[in-house]
Amino acid sequence: MTQQTIVTAAILAIGDELLSGRTKDKNIGHLAELLTLSGIDLKEVRIVPDDEEEIVAALNALRARYDYVFTSGGIGPTHDDITADAVSKAFGVPCIYEEEAMTLLAAMYERRGMEFTAARQRMARMPEGARHIPNPVSTAPGFTIGNVYVMAGVPQVFQAMVDAVLPTLKSGARVLSRSVTSPYGEGDIGGPLGEVQKRHPETSIGSYPKFDGKFFSTELVVRARDEAVLAAAEADVVAMIETIKAAKVTP
Amino acid sequence: MTQQTIVTAAILAIGDELLSGRTKDKNIGHLAELLTLSGIDLKEVRIVPDDEEEIVAALNALRARYDYVFTSGGIGPTHDDITADAVSKAFGVPCIYEEEAMTLLAAMYERRGMEFTAARQRMARMPEGARHIPNPVSTAPGFTIGNVYVMAGVPQVFQAMVDAVLPTLKSGARVLSRSVTSPYGEGDIGGPLGEVQKRHPETSIGSYPKFDGKFFSTELVVRARDEAVLAAAEADVVAMIETIKAAKVTP
Repeated sequence: MTQQTIVTAAILAIGDELLSGRTKDKNIGHLAELLTLSGIDLKEVRIVPDDEEEIVAALNALRARYDYVFTSGGIGPTHDDITADAVSKAFGVPCIYEEEAMTLLAAMYERRGMEFTAARQRMARMPEGARHIPNPVSTAPGFTIGNVYVMAGVPQVFQAMVDAVLPTLKSGARVLSRSVTSPYGEGDIGGPLGEVQKRHPETSIGSYPKFDGKFFSTELVVRARDEAVLAAAEADVVAMIETIKAAKVTP
Repeated sequence: MTQQTIVTAAILAIGDELLSGRTKDKNIGHLAELLTLSGIDLKEVRIVPDDEEEIVAALNALRARYDYVFTSGGIGPTHDDITADAVSKAFGVPCIYEEEAMTLLAAMYERRGMEFTAARQRMARMPEGARHIPNPVSTAPGFTIGNVYVMAGVPQVFQAMVDAVLPTLKSGARVLSRSVTSPYGEGDIGGPLGEVQKRHPETSIGSYPKFDGKFFSTELVVRARDEAVLAAAEADVVAMIETIKAAKVTP
Protein backbone atom coordinates (compact mmCIF):
# COMPACT_ATOMS: atom_id res chain seq x y z
CA MET A 1 0.00 0.00 0.00
CA THR A 2 1.30 3.47 -0.81
CA GLN A 3 1.86 6.14 1.81
CA GLN A 4 -1.26 8.28 2.08
CA THR A 5 -0.61 11.99 2.35
CA ILE A 6 -3.09 14.35 3.93
CA VAL A 7 -3.14 17.78 2.32
CA THR A 8 -5.28 20.44 4.01
CA ALA A 9 -6.79 23.71 2.85
CA ALA A 10 -8.93 26.65 3.92
CA ILE A 11 -10.98 29.19 1.98
CA LEU A 12 -11.15 32.85 2.96
CA ALA A 13 -13.96 34.66 1.14
CA ILE A 14 -13.68 38.44 1.37
CA GLY A 15 -16.48 40.94 0.90
CA ASP A 16 -19.12 43.03 2.65
CA GLU A 17 -21.62 41.96 -0.02
CA LEU A 18 -21.40 38.31 1.13
CA LEU A 19 -22.11 39.30 4.75
CA SER A 20 -25.01 41.59 3.85
CA GLY A 21 -26.63 38.75 1.92
CA ARG A 22 -26.69 40.90 -1.20
CA THR A 23 -24.44 38.45 -3.02
CA LYS A 24 -24.94 34.73 -2.50
CA ASP A 25 -21.54 33.08 -2.57
CA LYS A 26 -20.97 30.60 -5.38
CA ASN A 27 -17.22 30.19 -5.04
CA ILE A 28 -16.98 28.24 -1.79
CA GLY A 29 -19.12 25.30 -2.92
CA HIS A 30 -17.42 25.21 -6.30
CA LEU A 31 -13.89 25.09 -4.91
CA ALA A 32 -14.90 22.72 -2.09
CA GLU A 33 -16.04 20.17 -4.65
CA LEU A 34 -12.89 20.49 -6.78
CA LEU A 35 -10.61 20.19 -3.74
CA THR A 36 -12.35 16.96 -2.72
CA LEU A 37 -11.85 15.62 -6.24
CA SER A 38 -8.18 16.59 -6.01
CA GLY A 39 -7.70 14.73 -2.74
CA ILE A 40 -7.23 17.94 -0.75
CA ASP A 41 -9.15 18.21 2.54
CA LEU A 42 -10.95 21.51 2.95
CA LYS A 43 -10.92 21.98 6.74
CA GLU A 44 -12.29 25.48 7.30
CA VAL A 45 -13.99 28.39 5.56
CA ARG A 46 -14.24 31.98 6.75
CA ILE A 47 -16.06 34.94 5.32
CA VAL A 48 -14.80 38.36 6.44
CA PRO A 49 -15.66 41.96 5.51
CA ASP A 50 -13.60 44.39 3.38
CA ASP A 51 -11.59 45.39 6.44
CA GLU A 52 -7.81 45.19 6.39
CA GLU A 53 -7.36 44.19 10.00
CA GLU A 54 -9.94 41.40 9.73
CA ILE A 55 -8.45 40.04 6.50
CA VAL A 56 -4.90 40.06 7.92
CA ALA A 57 -5.95 38.32 11.14
CA ALA A 58 -7.98 35.61 9.37
CA LEU A 59 -5.30 35.04 6.73
CA ASN A 60 -2.52 34.69 9.30
CA ALA A 61 -4.60 32.25 11.37
CA LEU A 62 -5.42 30.11 8.34
CA ARG A 63 -2.08 30.11 6.52
CA ALA A 64 -0.25 29.01 9.67
CA ARG A 65 -2.57 26.08 10.09
CA TYR A 66 -3.32 24.61 6.67
CA ASP A 67 -1.24 23.60 3.66
CA TYR A 68 -3.11 25.94 1.32
CA VAL A 69 -5.32 29.01 1.69
CA PHE A 70 -7.49 30.21 -1.18
CA THR A 71 -9.03 33.67 -1.07
CA SER A 72 -11.80 35.14 -3.21
CA GLY A 73 -12.70 38.77 -3.72
CA GLY A 74 -11.30 42.24 -3.24
CA ILE A 75 -8.78 42.39 -6.10
CA GLY A 76 -10.66 44.76 -8.42
CA PRO A 77 -9.96 48.44 -9.08
CA THR A 78 -12.18 50.16 -6.51
CA HIS A 79 -11.52 51.68 -3.09
CA ASP A 80 -13.02 48.66 -1.31
CA ASP A 81 -10.66 46.25 -3.09
CA ILE A 82 -8.01 45.95 -0.40
CA THR A 83 -7.03 42.29 -0.57
CA ALA A 84 -3.60 42.94 -2.15
CA ASP A 85 -2.75 45.42 0.63
CA ALA A 86 -4.00 43.06 3.34
CA VAL A 87 -2.08 40.06 2.00
CA SER A 88 1.09 42.16 1.71
CA LYS A 89 0.66 43.27 5.30
CA ALA A 90 0.07 39.69 6.47
CA PHE A 91 3.35 38.63 4.80
CA GLY A 92 5.18 41.78 5.92
CA VAL A 93 6.22 42.80 2.40
CA PRO A 94 5.48 45.96 0.38
CA CYS A 95 2.46 46.04 -1.92
CA ILE A 96 3.84 47.04 -5.32
CA TYR A 97 2.60 47.82 -8.82
CA GLU A 98 3.98 44.62 -10.32
CA GLU A 99 5.77 45.24 -13.59
CA GLU A 100 4.53 42.32 -15.64
CA ALA A 101 0.94 42.92 -14.54
CA MET A 102 1.24 46.61 -15.49
CA THR A 103 2.47 45.58 -18.95
CA LEU A 104 -0.32 43.01 -19.44
CA LEU A 105 -3.05 45.40 -18.36
CA ALA A 106 -1.67 48.38 -20.31
CA ALA A 107 -1.55 46.27 -23.49
CA MET A 108 -5.08 44.96 -22.96
CA TYR A 109 -6.56 48.43 -22.44
CA GLU A 110 -4.64 49.75 -25.42
CA ARG A 111 -6.05 46.97 -27.65
CA ARG A 112 -9.52 47.89 -26.45
CA GLY A 113 -8.93 51.62 -26.95
CA MET A 114 -9.54 52.28 -23.25
CA GLU A 115 -7.64 54.48 -20.86
CA PHE A 116 -5.39 52.67 -18.34
CA THR A 117 -6.71 54.71 -15.41
CA ALA A 118 -5.22 54.94 -11.92
CA ALA A 119 -8.10 52.76 -10.75
CA ARG A 120 -7.28 50.07 -13.34
CA GLN A 121 -3.61 50.24 -12.36
CA ARG A 122 -4.67 49.19 -8.86
CA MET A 123 -5.30 45.73 -10.35
CA ALA A 124 -1.56 45.35 -10.99
CA ARG A 125 -0.81 45.69 -7.29
CA MET A 126 0.39 42.65 -5.37
CA PRO A 127 2.81 41.75 -2.61
CA GLU A 128 6.46 41.97 -3.65
CA GLY A 129 7.61 38.49 -4.65
CA ALA A 130 4.15 37.18 -5.57
CA ARG A 131 3.64 35.16 -8.75
CA HIS A 132 0.70 35.61 -11.14
CA ILE A 133 -2.39 33.48 -11.40
CA PRO A 134 -3.50 33.99 -15.01
CA ASN A 135 -6.93 35.44 -15.73
CA PRO A 136 -8.09 34.37 -19.20
CA VAL A 137 -11.46 36.11 -18.68
CA SER A 138 -10.55 39.72 -17.96
CA THR A 139 -6.70 39.82 -17.85
CA ALA A 140 -6.17 41.29 -14.34
CA PRO A 141 -4.17 38.52 -12.66
CA GLY A 142 -4.65 36.89 -9.30
CA PHE A 143 -1.49 36.05 -7.41
CA THR A 144 0.13 33.54 -5.13
CA ILE A 145 2.59 34.11 -2.32
CA GLY A 146 3.74 31.46 0.15
CA ASN A 147 0.87 29.00 0.53
CA VAL A 148 -1.80 31.62 -0.25
CA TYR A 149 -3.71 31.86 -3.55
CA VAL A 150 -5.52 35.14 -4.13
CA MET A 151 -8.32 35.03 -6.67
CA ALA A 152 -11.15 37.22 -7.93
CA GLY A 153 -14.66 37.22 -6.46
CA VAL A 154 -16.57 37.27 -9.77
CA PRO A 155 -17.42 33.56 -10.19
CA GLN A 156 -16.42 33.28 -13.87
CA VAL A 157 -12.99 34.71 -13.09
CA PHE A 158 -12.63 32.79 -9.82
CA GLN A 159 -13.35 29.52 -11.59
CA ALA A 160 -10.87 30.21 -14.39
CA MET A 161 -8.20 31.00 -11.78
CA VAL A 162 -9.00 27.82 -9.84
CA ASP A 163 -8.58 25.82 -13.05
CA ALA A 164 -5.12 27.34 -13.47
CA VAL A 165 -4.09 26.74 -9.85
CA LEU A 166 -5.32 23.21 -9.11
CA PRO A 167 -2.88 21.31 -11.36
CA THR A 168 0.04 23.07 -9.63
CA LEU A 169 -0.87 21.87 -6.11
CA LYS A 170 0.46 18.83 -4.36
CA SER A 171 -2.49 16.53 -4.02
CA GLY A 172 -3.37 14.14 -1.27
CA ALA A 173 -4.66 10.63 -1.49
CA ARG A 174 -8.02 11.10 -3.10
CA VAL A 175 -10.93 10.41 -0.81
CA LEU A 176 -13.14 7.74 -2.31
CA SER A 177 -16.83 7.90 -1.53
CA ARG A 178 -19.95 5.85 -2.10
CA SER A 179 -23.50 6.96 -1.55
CA VAL A 180 -26.26 4.72 -0.17
CA THR A 181 -29.84 5.97 -0.12
CA SER A 182 -31.84 5.08 2.96
CA PRO A 183 -35.64 5.27 2.72
CA TYR A 184 -35.64 5.74 6.49
CA GLY A 185 -35.05 8.96 8.40
CA GLU A 186 -32.16 9.56 10.73
CA GLY A 187 -34.27 8.63 13.74
CA ASP A 188 -34.59 5.06 12.43
CA ILE A 189 -31.01 4.60 11.35
CA GLY A 190 -29.09 6.82 13.77
CA GLY A 191 -28.44 4.13 16.39
CA PRO A 192 -27.38 1.29 14.06
CA LEU A 193 -25.40 3.71 11.88
CA GLY A 194 -23.34 4.79 14.89
CA GLU A 195 -22.48 1.11 15.39
CA VAL A 196 -21.45 0.76 11.74
CA GLN A 197 -19.21 3.82 12.10
CA LYS A 198 -17.58 2.31 15.20
CA ARG A 199 -16.87 -0.94 13.33
CA HIS A 200 -15.17 1.00 10.51
CA PRO A 201 -12.97 3.61 12.19
CA GLU A 202 -10.93 4.30 9.06
CA THR A 203 -14.01 5.58 7.26
CA SER A 204 -16.05 8.72 7.70
CA ILE A 205 -19.75 8.05 7.33
CA GLY A 206 -21.90 11.10 6.77
CA SER A 207 -25.65 11.14 7.09
CA TYR A 208 -27.59 13.78 5.18
CA PRO A 209 -31.28 14.08 5.91
CA LYS A 210 -33.60 15.03 3.09
CA PHE A 211 -37.04 16.42 3.70
CA ASP A 212 -39.60 16.34 0.90
CA GLY A 213 -42.11 18.48 2.81
CA LYS A 214 -43.64 15.42 4.48
CA PHE A 215 -41.09 12.69 5.10
CA PHE A 216 -37.41 12.52 5.91
CA SER A 217 -35.16 10.10 4.07
CA THR A 218 -31.39 9.94 4.35
CA GLU A 219 -28.44 9.84 2.04
CA LEU A 220 -25.53 8.00 3.62
CA VAL A 221 -22.08 8.78 2.29
CA VAL A 222 -19.23 6.46 3.15
CA ARG A 223 -15.73 7.89 2.63
CA ALA A 224 -12.33 6.28 2.84
CA ARG A 225 -8.95 6.58 1.21
CA ASP A 226 -8.72 2.85 0.54
CA GLU A 227 -11.04 0.90 -1.77
CA ALA A 228 -11.21 -2.28 0.33
CA VAL A 229 -11.92 -0.33 3.52
CA LEU A 230 -14.61 1.61 1.66
CA ALA A 231 -16.26 -1.50 0.20
CA ALA A 232 -16.43 -3.23 3.59
CA ALA A 233 -18.11 -0.24 5.24
CA GLU A 234 -20.50 0.24 2.33
CA ALA A 235 -21.58 -3.41 2.53
CA ASP A 236 -22.17 -2.98 6.26
CA VAL A 237 -24.37 0.09 5.64
CA VAL A 238 -26.41 -1.76 3.01
CA ALA A 239 -26.84 -4.72 5.38
CA MET A 240 -27.97 -2.32 8.13
CA ILE A 241 -30.74 -0.94 5.90
CA GLU A 242 -31.86 -4.49 4.99
CA THR A 243 -32.04 -5.37 8.69
CA ILE A 244 -34.22 -2.32 9.40
CA LYS A 245 -36.43 -3.21 6.42
CA ALA A 246 -36.87 -6.79 7.68
CA ALA A 247 -37.72 -5.56 11.18
CA LYS A 248 -40.40 -3.24 9.77
CA VAL A 249 -42.20 -5.90 7.67
CA THR A 250 -42.06 -8.60 10.36
CA PRO A 251 -44.77 -7.98 12.96
CA MET B 1 -31.71 62.18 16.05
CA THR B 2 -32.08 58.88 17.92
CA GLN B 3 -29.12 57.01 19.28
CA GLN B 4 -27.98 54.44 16.75
CA THR B 5 -27.12 51.06 18.17
CA ILE B 6 -24.76 48.67 16.41
CA VAL B 7 -25.66 45.02 16.93
CA THR B 8 -23.21 42.44 15.58
CA ALA B 9 -23.51 38.77 14.70
CA ALA B 10 -21.63 35.78 13.34
CA ILE B 11 -22.74 32.55 11.70
CA LEU B 12 -21.06 29.21 12.42
CA ALA B 13 -22.10 26.56 9.88
CA ILE B 14 -21.19 23.05 10.99
CA GLY B 15 -20.80 20.02 8.75
CA ASP B 16 -18.33 17.88 6.81
CA GLU B 17 -20.76 17.88 3.89
CA LEU B 18 -20.36 21.66 3.43
CA LEU B 19 -16.57 21.34 3.33
CA SER B 20 -16.58 18.41 0.91
CA GLY B 21 -18.76 20.41 -1.48
CA ARG B 22 -21.37 17.69 -1.40
CA THR B 23 -23.94 20.08 0.08
CA LYS B 24 -24.06 23.66 -1.14
CA ASP B 25 -24.91 25.87 1.82
CA LYS B 26 -28.20 27.74 1.54
CA ASN B 27 -28.48 28.92 5.13
CA ILE B 28 -25.71 31.53 5.28
CA GLY B 29 -27.06 33.70 2.46
CA HIS B 30 -30.62 33.38 3.76
CA LEU B 31 -29.79 34.46 7.31
CA ALA B 32 -27.36 37.15 6.09
CA GLU B 33 -30.17 38.82 4.18
CA LEU B 34 -32.61 38.66 7.10
CA LEU B 35 -30.04 40.02 9.57
CA THR B 36 -29.42 43.01 7.29
CA LEU B 37 -33.16 43.63 7.12
CA SER B 38 -33.27 43.44 10.92
CA GLY B 39 -30.51 46.00 11.33
CA ILE B 40 -28.04 43.44 12.67
CA ASP B 41 -24.52 43.53 11.20
CA LEU B 42 -23.24 40.10 10.19
CA LYS B 43 -19.48 40.47 10.71
CA GLU B 44 -18.07 37.00 10.19
CA VAL B 45 -18.97 33.52 8.97
CA ARG B 46 -17.10 30.30 9.61
CA ILE B 47 -17.68 26.78 8.32
CA VAL B 48 -16.12 23.99 10.39
CA PRO B 49 -16.23 20.18 10.23
CA ASP B 50 -18.15 17.79 12.54
CA ASP B 51 -15.27 17.85 15.00
CA GLU B 52 -15.90 18.74 18.63
CA GLU B 53 -12.64 20.56 19.22
CA GLU B 54 -13.07 22.68 16.09
CA ILE B 55 -16.66 23.59 16.93
CA VAL B 56 -15.78 24.54 20.51
CA ALA B 57 -12.82 26.70 19.45
CA ALA B 58 -14.77 28.54 16.73
CA LEU B 59 -17.82 29.02 18.95
CA ASN B 60 -15.79 30.43 21.82
CA ALA B 61 -13.95 32.82 19.50
CA LEU B 62 -17.17 34.07 17.94
CA ARG B 63 -19.42 34.30 21.00
CA ALA B 64 -16.82 36.38 22.86
CA ARG B 65 -16.63 38.84 20.04
CA TYR B 66 -20.14 39.37 18.64
CA ASP B 67 -23.55 40.09 20.15
CA TYR B 68 -25.11 37.00 18.59
CA VAL B 69 -23.85 33.72 17.14
CA PHE B 70 -26.11 31.55 14.99
CA THR B 71 -25.13 27.97 14.25
CA SER B 72 -26.53 25.59 11.64
CA GLY B 73 -26.24 21.82 11.50
CA GLY B 74 -25.32 18.86 13.64
CA ILE B 75 -28.42 18.58 15.83
CA GLY B 76 -29.99 15.48 14.27
CA PRO B 77 -30.05 11.92 15.66
CA THR B 78 -26.90 10.41 14.13
CA HIS B 79 -23.39 9.81 15.43
CA ASP B 80 -22.00 12.78 13.51
CA ASP B 81 -24.52 15.17 15.14
CA ILE B 82 -22.33 16.52 17.91
CA THR B 83 -23.31 20.18 18.07
CA ALA B 84 -25.22 19.86 21.39
CA ASP B 85 -22.17 18.24 23.02
CA ALA B 86 -19.80 20.84 21.58
CA VAL B 87 -21.95 23.80 22.66
CA SER B 88 -22.27 22.33 26.17
CA LYS B 89 -18.50 21.95 26.34
CA ALA B 90 -17.98 25.53 25.12
CA PHE B 91 -20.25 26.80 27.91
CA GLY B 92 -18.83 24.37 30.48
CA VAL B 93 -22.21 22.83 31.35
CA PRO B 94 -23.47 19.23 31.11
CA CYS B 95 -25.26 18.09 27.96
CA ILE B 96 -28.57 16.66 29.17
CA TYR B 97 -31.66 14.94 27.77
CA GLU B 98 -33.92 17.95 28.29
CA GLU B 99 -37.23 16.98 29.83
CA GLU B 100 -39.60 19.13 27.79
CA ALA B 101 -37.90 18.11 24.54
CA MET B 102 -38.17 14.43 25.53
CA THR B 103 -41.91 14.92 26.16
CA LEU B 104 -42.46 16.75 22.87
CA LEU B 105 -40.58 14.17 20.83
CA ALA B 106 -42.10 11.16 22.61
CA ALA B 107 -45.61 12.53 21.95
CA MET B 108 -44.85 13.23 18.29
CA TYR B 109 -43.49 9.74 17.64
CA GLU B 110 -46.39 8.20 19.49
CA ARG B 111 -48.87 10.13 17.31
CA ARG B 112 -47.04 8.86 14.24
CA GLY B 113 -46.92 5.30 15.58
CA MET B 114 -43.14 5.31 15.49
CA GLU B 115 -40.66 4.07 18.02
CA PHE B 116 -38.86 6.75 20.09
CA THR B 117 -35.46 5.18 19.53
CA ALA B 118 -32.24 5.98 21.35
CA ALA B 119 -31.10 7.80 18.20
CA ARG B 120 -34.25 9.96 18.19
CA GLN B 121 -33.78 10.69 21.90
CA ARG B 122 -30.42 12.25 20.98
CA MET B 123 -32.42 15.13 19.48
CA ALA B 124 -33.62 16.06 22.99
CA ARG B 125 -30.07 16.67 24.14
CA MET B 126 -28.97 20.23 24.85
CA PRO B 127 -26.79 22.13 27.31
CA GLU B 128 -28.28 22.39 30.79
CA GLY B 129 -30.08 25.72 31.08
CA ALA B 130 -30.73 26.12 27.34
CA ARG B 131 -34.13 27.28 26.09
CA HIS B 132 -35.95 25.78 23.10
CA ILE B 133 -36.15 27.19 19.61
CA PRO B 134 -39.41 25.74 18.28
CA ASN B 135 -39.37 23.54 15.18
CA PRO B 136 -42.77 23.59 13.48
CA VAL B 137 -41.46 21.42 10.63
CA SER B 138 -40.22 18.28 12.35
CA THR B 139 -40.61 18.93 16.12
CA ALA B 140 -37.01 18.37 17.31
CA PRO B 141 -36.18 21.76 18.83
CA GLY B 142 -33.15 23.96 18.35
CA PHE B 143 -31.91 25.74 21.43
CA THR B 144 -30.40 28.95 22.70
CA ILE B 145 -27.91 29.47 25.50
CA GLY B 146 -26.19 32.74 26.29
CA ASN B 147 -25.87 34.64 23.03
CA VAL B 148 -25.75 31.46 20.90
CA TYR B 149 -28.64 30.17 18.77
CA VAL B 150 -28.33 26.56 17.65
CA MET B 151 -30.42 25.60 14.65
CA ALA B 152 -30.83 22.71 12.24
CA GLY B 153 -28.92 22.35 8.99
CA VAL B 154 -31.84 21.24 6.80
CA PRO B 155 -32.82 24.54 5.14
CA GLN B 156 -36.59 24.22 5.67
CA VAL B 157 -36.07 23.65 9.40
CA PHE B 158 -33.31 26.25 9.67
CA GLN B 159 -35.54 28.88 8.08
CA ALA B 160 -38.47 28.09 10.36
CA MET B 161 -36.18 28.39 13.38
CA VAL B 162 -34.77 31.70 12.13
CA ASP B 163 -38.32 33.01 11.78
CA ALA B 164 -38.94 32.12 15.43
CA VAL B 165 -35.69 33.65 16.66
CA LEU B 166 -35.45 36.97 14.78
CA PRO B 167 -38.34 38.77 16.53
CA THR B 168 -36.74 38.00 19.92
CA LEU B 169 -33.42 39.73 19.13
CA LYS B 170 -32.49 43.28 19.97
CA SER B 171 -32.17 44.99 16.64
CA GLY B 172 -29.81 47.71 15.57
CA ALA B 173 -30.50 50.79 13.57
CA ARG B 174 -31.46 49.37 10.24
CA VAL B 175 -28.94 49.97 7.51
CA LEU B 176 -30.60 51.82 4.65
CA SER B 177 -29.27 51.14 1.19
CA ARG B 178 -29.73 52.41 -2.32
CA SER B 179 -28.50 50.79 -5.49
CA VAL B 180 -27.18 52.73 -8.50
CA THR B 181 -26.40 50.89 -11.71
CA SER B 182 -23.30 52.02 -13.53
CA PRO B 183 -22.96 51.08 -17.20
CA TYR B 184 -19.22 51.42 -16.74
CA GLY B 185 -16.85 48.83 -15.32
CA GLU B 186 -14.88 49.29 -12.14
CA GLY B 187 -11.82 50.43 -14.09
CA ASP B 188 -13.72 53.51 -15.28
CA ILE B 189 -15.36 54.39 -12.00
CA GLY B 190 -12.85 53.14 -9.43
CA GLY B 191 -10.90 56.39 -9.09
CA PRO B 192 -13.85 58.83 -8.89
CA LEU B 193 -15.79 56.40 -6.67
CA GLY B 194 -12.95 56.38 -4.15
CA GLU B 195 -13.26 60.19 -4.01
CA VAL B 196 -17.02 59.94 -3.45
CA GLN B 197 -16.42 57.48 -0.60
CA LYS B 198 -13.91 59.89 0.98
CA ARG B 199 -16.43 62.74 0.81
CA HIS B 200 -19.07 60.61 2.59
CA PRO B 201 -17.26 58.87 5.44
CA GLU B 202 -20.48 57.92 7.25
CA THR B 203 -21.53 55.72 4.35
CA SER B 204 -20.24 52.44 3.06
CA ILE B 205 -20.19 52.33 -0.72
CA GLY B 206 -19.87 48.89 -2.23
CA SER B 207 -19.02 48.22 -5.84
CA TYR B 208 -20.12 44.92 -7.36
CA PRO B 209 -18.84 44.11 -10.82
CA LYS B 210 -21.07 42.17 -13.16
CA PHE B 211 -19.73 40.32 -16.14
CA ASP B 212 -22.11 39.29 -18.92
CA GLY B 213 -19.52 37.19 -20.74
CA LYS B 214 -18.25 40.18 -22.69
CA PHE B 215 -18.52 43.43 -20.74
CA PHE B 216 -18.27 44.45 -17.12
CA SER B 217 -20.81 46.81 -15.62
CA THR B 218 -21.10 47.74 -11.95
CA GLU B 219 -23.77 47.88 -9.32
CA LEU B 220 -22.99 50.51 -6.72
CA VAL B 221 -24.62 50.12 -3.35
CA VAL B 222 -24.63 53.07 -0.96
CA ARG B 223 -25.38 52.22 2.68
CA ALA B 224 -25.96 54.44 5.69
CA ARG B 225 -27.98 54.44 8.86
CA ASP B 226 -29.35 57.94 8.23
CA GLU B 227 -31.62 58.89 5.34
CA ALA B 228 -30.14 62.36 4.72
CA VAL B 229 -26.58 61.01 4.76
CA LEU B 230 -27.64 58.26 2.36
CA ALA B 231 -29.40 60.64 -0.05
CA ALA B 232 -26.39 62.99 -0.22
CA ALA B 233 -24.00 60.15 -1.05
CA GLU B 234 -26.40 58.64 -3.58
CA ALA B 235 -26.74 62.00 -5.37
CA ASP B 236 -22.95 62.24 -5.49
CA VAL B 237 -22.67 58.75 -7.03
CA VAL B 238 -25.28 59.60 -9.68
CA ALA B 239 -23.46 62.87 -10.47
CA MET B 240 -20.19 60.94 -10.78
CA ILE B 241 -21.71 58.62 -13.42
CA GLU B 242 -23.07 61.63 -15.34
CA THR B 243 -19.61 63.21 -15.33
CA ILE B 244 -18.05 60.02 -16.73
CA LYS B 245 -20.80 59.84 -19.38
CA ALA B 246 -20.17 63.47 -20.43
CA ALA B 247 -16.42 62.86 -20.62
CA LYS B 248 -16.98 59.83 -22.89
CA VAL B 249 -19.23 61.64 -25.42
CA THR B 250 -17.15 64.81 -25.54
CA PRO B 251 -14.08 64.30 -27.75
